[in-house]
Formats: sequence, C-alpha cells, structure tokens
Amino acid sequence: MGLRYLEDLNVGMQAELSRVLDDAAVRAFADVSGDTNPLHLDEAFAKDGPFRQRIAHGAHVASLVSAVMGVELPGPGAIYMSQTVQFLRPVRIGDTVRAQVTVAAISPETKQVTLACACLVGSRTVMRGEAIVRMASRAERGS
Amino acid sequence: MGLRYLEDLNVGMQAELSRVLDDAAVRAFADVSGDTNPLHLDEAFAKDGPFRQRIAHGAHVASLVSAVMGVELPGPGAIYMSQTVQFLRPVRIGDTVRAQVTVAAISPETKQVTLACACLVGSRTVMRGEAIVRMASRAERGS
Repeated sequence: MGLRYLEDLNVGMQAELSRVLDDAAVRAFADVSGDTNPLHLDEAFAKDGPFRQRIAHGAHVASLVSAVMGVELPGPGAIYMSQTVQFLRPVRIGDTVRAQVTVAAISPETKQVTLACACLVGSRTVMRGEAIVRMASRAERGS
Repeated sequence: MGLRYLEDLNVGMQAELSRVLDDAAVRAFADVSGDTNPLHLDEAFAKDGPFRQRIAHGAHVASLVSAVMGVELPGPGAIYMSQTVQFLRPVRIGDTVRAQVTVAAISPETKQVTLACACLVGSRTVMRGEAIVRMASRAERGS
C-alpha cells in the first residue's frame, strides 16, 4: 500500500468493501469493543426486542466505512478527523454489508477531504454518514 | 442486565469504562473491521508518519463509547440512532482509554435521549461526540 496524497484524490472517486457480519464476527466485535449488550449476543433476549432477533453492533457497521478509508480511499496517509453516522435499519446476524465511500469535497486550503459514507445490505441503505480526513500535500512535501 | 426504559434516565447521569488498547487489541480490531492500514499495524511505516509511531484505530476508540451505551448507560433497551465523533488526539498502542457517556437531554415526545460522549487518555480528551438513542417508555408498555 503506497502513501496517498491530496493530489491523488478527485471528487466522485469511490471505493467499497463487503463483509459478512456472521455470529463469529459479531462475537469478536463484542470482545474488542466491550459491548456485550445481549441484543447482539443473546437470541432469547433479542427475540422479545424491537427487531425480533439479534443484530450486529452499529459501531461494527460504522467501522467498515473506516476500513474502506484506511485501506482503499483515501488509504494510508489519511488522518481521521471526524465522522457522523445515522443508523437507518438493523443489520441481522449473517447479513453481508457493503460499505461505500465517495469523495464529496476537497479543500486545498485546509487539506481536508469530505467523504460520503454508506453501508448497504442488498439494495437497502442501513447506515449513512460523512467523514472528514486530512491529507498531506505532495506539492508541499516536494515528492 | 435488566432492560432500561426512558423513565430510568435523568439528565446528568454518567457512566464510563476503561480499556487498554494494546497491540493485541489493535490487531483484533484490524481483523474485525478489515482496517489493515499500516499506520495501526506496521511500526516502520508509522515511524515516518505524522505521529512517529503506530496509533489505535479511531473507530476502535469510538466503539468504546458505544460499549458504555450498550452495557451501562442507557444499557440494554436503547436503540442506537446516530453518532458524531471528533478525533482530537492520537491514541498510542498501550494507552488506557477512559470512555465516558453523560445523559445530556431527554425528549419524552420522541423518546430520544442525547448522550454526550468523550474518550480520555489520562486527563487529555482524545475524542468527543454526541449520540442519540431511542428508548421504550415504561408507561407505554404498562410494565
């Protein structure tokens, strides 16, 4: 993975990844975050809840767009400044989540890049939001 | 863990958890999110970067406030609607992160609760943001 600079980006560039949030993935996320809410882990508890079944952690779904940003677009060299997310629909255990990131705006003055973020299950948007990252400028570095 | 209702909350209530984001935790988060950016995993790469060393994933730090919300405050029964986060300072490998959540506002009309979120390393705030969750009302359920 090469380092990415501000000049490597254009508005409209898009990248995505897909990931299955199966039982093992959800339990691993509970471990790594400490969020052991039974809505995610306990079928009997979740059956009586609003979704009638266990669902994946919202923060897990959100982490997938940060993975696209960390690995693909912008990729290494981007510094994560801020993120907004809205959770629109539950993600069920075993759903395949497609996380998409699109370059929405680039500010040469602040070197900040605004990225539109969305997660889909099939054709339905389950999460959307916006991220801001800061990039180094190749011109500035003389490289 | 008992189910929590809107009536169980008051403005000013606070909860927190602490977690060490050591090398094993950071590698586990890379696995579960798919974010294998070398800024988090590769000491040689990170040494030449803006922080001069590897740092934890921003999404990992953010997941700790969602863990407080999922387990402690409000706890089971809260439905995650939205989250904003600003990353203010890097979290280094091995740092102990204290994630704090405070009830900032309660709307009986919408049953939405606004939570102020912060993560600290020592006395320094490394992340802050705001979450909105929706709760069921005990009055409504007649329980």
